[in-house]
Amino acid sequence: MRAARELTMKPNGVVTFLTDFGASGMYVGAMKGALLSVAPSARIIDISHEISAQAVREASFVGGGAWKYFPDGTGHVAAVDPDVGTDRLPVLVETPNCFFIGPDNGLCSALLPADARPAQAGRIPIPAGSRAYVLSERRYHRPDLSATFHGRDLFAPVAGHVTNGVAASDFGPSLQDLFALPGERATWDAAARLAGSVIYVDHFGNVMTNVRVEDLPPSPQLTVAGRVVDEGVVRTYDDIHVVAGLIGSEGYLELACPRGNAARLLVVGAGAPVVVTAG
Amino acid sequence: MRAARELTMKPNGVVTFLTDFGASGMYVGAMKGALLSVAPSARIIDISHEISAQAVREASFVGGGAWKYFPDGTGHVAAVDPDVGTDRLPVLVETPNCFFIGPDNGLCSALLPADARPAQAGRIPIPAGSRAYVLSERRYHRPDLSATFHGRDLFAPVAGHVTNGVAASDFGPSLQDLFALPGERATWDAAARLAGSVIYVDHFGNVMTNVRVEDLPPSPQLTVAGRVVDEGVVRTYDDIHVVAGLIGSEGYLELACPRGNAARLLVVGAGAPVVVTAG
Amino acid sequence: MRAARELTMKPNGVVTFLTDFGASGMYVGAMKGALLSVAPSARIIDISHEISAQAVREASFVGGGAWKYFPDGTGHVAAVDPDVGTDRLPVLVETPNCFFIGPDNGLCSALLPADARPAQAGRIPIPAGSRAYVLSERRYHRPDLSATFHGRDLFAPVAGHVTNGVAASDFGPSLQDLFALPGERATWDAAARLAGSVIYVDHFGNVMTNVRVEDLPPSPQLTVAGRVVDEGVVRTYDDIHVVAGLIGSEGYLELACPRGNAARLLVVGAGAPVVVTAG
Repeated sequence: MRAARELTMKPNGVVTFLTDFGASGMYVGAMKGALLSVAPSARIIDISHEISAQAVREASFVGGGAWKYFPDGTGHVAAVDPDVGTDRLPVLVETPNCFFIGPDNGLCSALLPADARPAQAGRIPIPAGSRAYVLSERRYHRPDLSATFHGRDLFAPVAGHVTNGVAASDFGPSLQDLFALPGERATWDAAARLAGSVIYVDHFGNVMTNVRVEDLPPSPQLTVAGRVVDEGVVRTYDDIHVVAGLIGSEGYLELACPRGNAARLLVVGAGAPVVVTAG
Repeated sequence: MRAARELTMKPNGVVTFLTDFGASGMYVGAMKGALLSVAPSARIIDISHEISAQAVREASFVGGGAWKYFPDGTGHVAAVDPDVGTDRLPVLVETPNCFFIGPDNGLCSALLPADARPAQAGRIPIPAGSRAYVLSERRYHRPDLSATFHGRDLFAPVAGHVTNGVAASDFGPSLQDLFALPGERATWDAAARLAGSVIYVDHFGNVMTNVRVEDLPPSPQLTVAGRVVDEGVVRTYDDIHVVAGLIGSEGYLELACPRGNAARLLVVGAGAPVVVTAG
Repeated sequence: MRAARELTMKPNGVVTFLTDFGASGMYVGAMKGALLSVAPSARIIDISHEISAQAVREASFVGGGAWKYFPDGTGHVAAVDPDVGTDRLPVLVETPNCFFIGPDNGLCSALLPADARPAQAGRIPIPAGSRAYVLSERRYHRPDLSATFHGRDLFAPVAGHVTNGVAASDFGPSLQDLFALPGERATWDAAARLAGSVIYVDHFGNVMTNVRVEDLPPSPQLTVAGRVVDEGVVRTYDDIHVVAGLIGSEGYLELACPRGNAARLLVVGAGAPVVVTAG
């Protein structure tokens, strides 16, 4: 066994989990146990275990709204992994700020620089400043690696070894490219309309879109799933009468219905079209 | 920047979270990250993220059933905040036992002495032994403070600075009064009946009321939403045949249905009337 | 008070919780506070708070899929306790690897050696290498012990004292037997068919059975709730067309429907019969 080399960035002992396992069963507990068995002092933070089943784009969006607030050196484990047991690669991605441990299926996209993300989902070169490694070294996995639960048998123990200071390059060969999802940003169509879509509906029924605040025209007129939103874009929930747009805390346009559920009112979910024109 | 003065009470490093954000999305993770970025060694405890949306009274009741069991010096962050972005104040309340960080909307009521709570929701003087401060000092917030997510941008970082030992008075000017909710306690009506209501239905369907054990008459007769509960008040779940009252672990009368759901059986929810008379 | 004697196994400071309390209310937070009040440095890990109400067998199965991955010296608190307040015993079980704190109702069964588990639910002698104690010493409980919430008033504080190094034998008299549930393992019937049942449906709708991989005949033919599963047993989710069996990460046969919900497709839940014959 090679001596552990110093990582570029020092792990800070915090490891977050983001999964579609549900909080009700044994899977999350098993992952936490598998991590603590390797790194007894790791400090575990749950991001969410309620990602829709196999919803990689949703997980990347939720991760994108949470990961960046953690201190430098945090390890982020993500296990939304519809292709577990196939030849999709398990990877460690070291960015200038954090470690990502999970499948190479686009989950880590939100950790990449916006200008590195592709126009269509697909493989992209590793952005400058980041490195990626295949998690092929069996000695860092559980001895009885299953074909169905890499969260417990592979990602959690690797996160433990990262926490313990094992160098990223010890986990396996470096990768030259990563699977990445396109950035979440509405684009101008041929009719000079900003054409986007709903990305996520939150717990309150707020409808989060991929329309960026910096792309909004003056006096924006909103149409969501074919329905005009008369109230336009306002500043706070308190300024809304029935339903209106406002700029969410991540810089995206969202539709909200104060003390109500905008998604139910507008009858929309992820994927619904959103069109913005200048007023 | 002034030197941090010693707090009356020393923070113990534990910070609890109580929100209506739901555990499924990015909001809870973002708050945790924002806290750890300020206080990397803070120990985060989730109370609940499943408070009904904007339900301040429910949150105060749930907090009241949990906060008091924590050791002295714990920080309690509560973000059930329908008026975020308006002129409602963000506050730090320092009680003899703990720190509360959240909006000044009644959430902290359960941390105030019972005799300080008002008959009607409204502003009350700060009780003796406690102090309150407006969280107006921008240097303790995230630099890019949003209008919609003070949990992440204001309450979590302030909780981090409290954990780090910043004196309460450094966060902003002291307040002379706080918004408080009435104590949860049924009262005697003109007909000499103890008239209360359902406050909360728990996960098992147990129906928690605001009738206090010390107010119960001898051989109490219960009527819930107009329906007589024949079995009266018993000692343990095992003493119940179909549905009966018993004294919950917080000293309130609750209605329970062993291995069943009393709320569904009685068809009641928060707000339903409860009447108790002497047998 | 006797001097705390050294435990056989040293507690490692990690305490897990497994309950049917739901994550929405005050119960979980109250337990965590009660633990931290005794052992301020304990590190709390949630296994699940969403066990079906009073479902002891389900809890034991979920615990069995999580507890064993934790490092030696972990304390496991389990509170699925339909008989709280009756004469069922609160117990501490010390196994060669961990501490269990909870009611003596079969919850700890998954921590016992497979060959010690009974054919029918009932009392069994304490297996060699383990010890069990009644939690009768009142000084280790909360002073105001309720009849309805031993999780907060008894199990959590005892877990705190265990974490602090109080010897197991200090909590009360030793027990000679424990209530245990049968091992989860399908058996051969008179017609030479392996006859089992569904134990658990996970968050994805995967149907987990009590058929062990080592009991499977060659070319196994599966019938679930009377319906033949044509695709038989495959290796990974990727090998499934509509619905098939595969060996889950715990060594049990499960039925899965990739990117779908096998339990809904097969219309089965816990208890449904599963029959396997040689092909």
